Amino acid sequence: MAERTPLHGQLPRGVQDLFGAAAAQRADLEARLARTFRAWGYTQLIPPTFEYYENLALGLSPKVQEDTYRFLDHRGHTLALRPDITVQTARIVGTKLYDQPMPQRFYYIAPVFRYTEVQAGRQREFSQAGIELVGATTAQADAEVVGLAVEALRAVGAPDFRVSIGQINFFRSVLAQLDVPPATAEQVQVAVDHKSAAEVRAILDGQPAVSVDLLARIPSLVGGPDVLAEARALAPWPQAQAALDNLAQVYEWLRRAGLAAPIVIDLGEVRGMDYYTGLTFEAFVPGVGFAVINGGRYDRLVGYFGPACPSVGFALGVERVMLALGETATTAHLPDALVVMSDDPDCLQALAQLRAEGLRVEMDVLGRTVEELLAYAEARGIPRVLAWLDRRLAPLEVERVG
Amino acid sequence: MAERTPLHGQLPRGVQDLFGAAAAQRADLEARLARTFRAWGYTQLIPPTFEYYENLALGLSPKVQEDTYRFLDHRGHTLALRPDITVQTARIVGTKLYDQPMPQRFYYIAPVFRYTEVQAGRQREFSQAGIELVGATTAQADAEVVGLAVEALRAVGAPDFRVSIGQINFFRSVLAQLDVPPATAEQVQVAVDHKSAAEVRAILDGQPAVSVDLLARIPSLVGGPDVLAEARALAPWPQAQAALDNLAQVYEWLRRAGLAAPIVIDLGEVRGMDYYTGLTFEAFVPGVGFAVINGGRYDRLVGYFGPACPSVGFALGVERVMLALGETATTAHLPDALVVMSDDPDCLQALAQLRAEGLRVEMDVLGRTVEELLAYAEARGIPRVLAWLDRRLAPLEVERVG
Repeated sequence: MAERTPLHGQLPRGVQDLFGAAAAQRADLEARLARTFRAWGYTQLIPPTFEYYENLALGLSPKVQEDTYRFLDHRGHTLALRPDITVQTARIVGTKLYDQPMPQRFYYIAPVFRYTEVQAGRQREFSQAGIELVGATTAQADAEVVGLAVEALRAVGAPDFRVSIGQINFFRSVLAQLDVPPATAEQVQVAVDHKSAAEVRAILDGQPAVSVDLLARIPSLVGGPDVLAEARALAPWPQAQAALDNLAQVYEWLRRAGLAAPIVIDLGEVRGMDYYTGLTFEAFVPGVGFAVINGGRYDRLVGYFGPACPSVGFALGVERVMLALGETATTAHLPDALVVMSDDPDCLQALAQLRAEGLRVEMDVLGRTVEELLAYAEARGIPRVLAWLDRRLAPLEVERVG
Repeated sequence: MAERTPLHGQLPRGVQDLFGAAAAQRADLEARLARTFRAWGYTQLIPPTFEYYENLALGLSPKVQEDTYRFLDHRGHTLALRPDITVQTARIVGTKLYDQPMPQRFYYIAPVFRYTEVQAGRQREFSQAGIELVGATTAQADAEVVGLAVEALRAVGAPDFRVSIGQINFFRSVLAQLDVPPATAEQVQVAVDHKSAAEVRAILDGQPAVSVDLLARIPSLVGGPDVLAEARALAPWPQAQAALDNLAQVYEWLRRAGLAAPIVIDLGEVRGMDYYTGLTFEAFVPGVGFAVINGGRYDRLVGYFGPACPSVGFALGVERVMLALGETATTAHLPDALVVMSDDPDCLQALAQLRAEGLRVEMDVLGRTVEELLAYAEARGIPRVLAWLDRRLAPLEVERVG
């Protein structure tokens, strides 16, 4: 028998049980996402929940590496619960699918695990729904991925969302052009991410004014396509111009596709995974204090595992979207009807027929009276009680109280 | 950059990457199972992938406990990847849902983890699709669960399957009546599980002939309802008779429901989880050397976590069913069409319309020529290439070679 320790029956912090309406809501949301991804030609990838840590760690930021759940197998090798599925996709492409016709499109909807601070919408086990478009370097590929992010957020009914697109090569080319040393560059990156020109100036105190002025401008390069023109004048060297060309093409395609309304160009978007190499983007929803989607181009990751292969993708945090949507009234977890059982085999045939037609029907297994069943159906919220009358399953009158 | 160690790009033994047709086949199979479970009034439960080991270990056999992947959190508590979802269901019911109207019906489809010997259809991470019917002790409840197992196997198209139903209380009552000491009882259980009367006799050498004869008969108590009559005469005491009554009622209900064809009564079915307390059953498919479904009644498990609550359920091994089905020809992972892109916004609108109608359509993102796209579509197995002609997306002729 069970000893009653302090952990008895308790869940660890940061993981949860989903059932009833919440489970139905998540399943519905994931089904909408899968349908949207498939409509754009993406096919499902199901990688393992854990694998060797050394493979998962490739390309992840030190922070995510630190937050990875690790354990040893019986042979002393370090395994880890995946903190991310993009690295797994890169491993699969680099070791198994590198010789297939390109481009390739994958989606996944699966839990990932990070040992982080827990708060609303930020759990230690959470569901990521994401896509990867592999084997294309074009702005058209970048645009497809941002466009699909917009469509995914529309498909789940995310309210008033905004997708900010940036280009890590713009920021990197400015740093390179100005010869900012790596340690300072890291501090500047944090300051730009905070959208603080003052912070940037404080870090660069004593540097040439032209460098300070340029870097301090970056946090305010946010808005519509006019931001690109402003940036073109500020950073006339080729790598910066190429980054701006890429953003202009992406924006133009989204505009033509009718998907540009939620787009904000943000050249101060410099956060994110270390593996990004070009376009990056994030999506935000009012009331949720962190991105519900993170995405971008990562052209080097597959090359860690096999032949180099450019890629672009995003991951959507399913719980974060659920937080944005709030609790929705759903009866998707409830049966459509409850059946008063009869011993007549024809009743069981009729019941099988209803189920084959798509009705969710619960049988009574407790031999309850009709009154008891009506009361139970009302307590559960089951809309109909059926009984075998005149050789058919007919609805009984359910009396509603209140 | 990546160091090239022996594990670089490798997967641990017993876990796998699913993509393409195999991933589509598994998703289709899981969707059929979910639809079947829902049709019988079951609602989805999504428990966490890991939790405290001490809670998961309750009620599991020593073998499964030993095979559980364990690791420490930062506070030194032992966590474990779930080796089973029935114990999690019991924890949820016992701690969170004990005061809800009974009975309650749950299903889950999710990976579980066991550090076992790897072979075809037996991986270390595998998908279980299962149900639990909570809060009912009746034979009708047992019958519903066995019936749903039969329906689930029909829904996935499992060929020539057989479901053997047994009653652990019949065997236990015989052992109790004959005063077989626990250590001997364990050996007898193994021998009965091996269906070996000779092995039973060898273990009981020197015991009273009446005990030996009775226990040696058990492995042959296998077949149709006539087996129950034979068993009734052999074991006339109340607990054994009650177990046989239960099986008779279950069988009779399945017969009336048109679900008895694959059923075999097997009073020698004594294996399985330690938590079973009544009816037990297993399903087998030709060519797969172990059960594709294990199920039974477990009336004590919820009581480890909260108020006692009788329960009955089963778990189906999804990969085992896939092994039984073999590879099936599917195009569910392929797009329905490939689009030659045009800059015309109306083309993008027409494309969005096709997708809204349920068509899976891939866009060209590489600026390829029509000839290149036709060749790519053929290599991928995409049946149609669409182009924007006369202001509509019209199919091009795809020439098939071979």
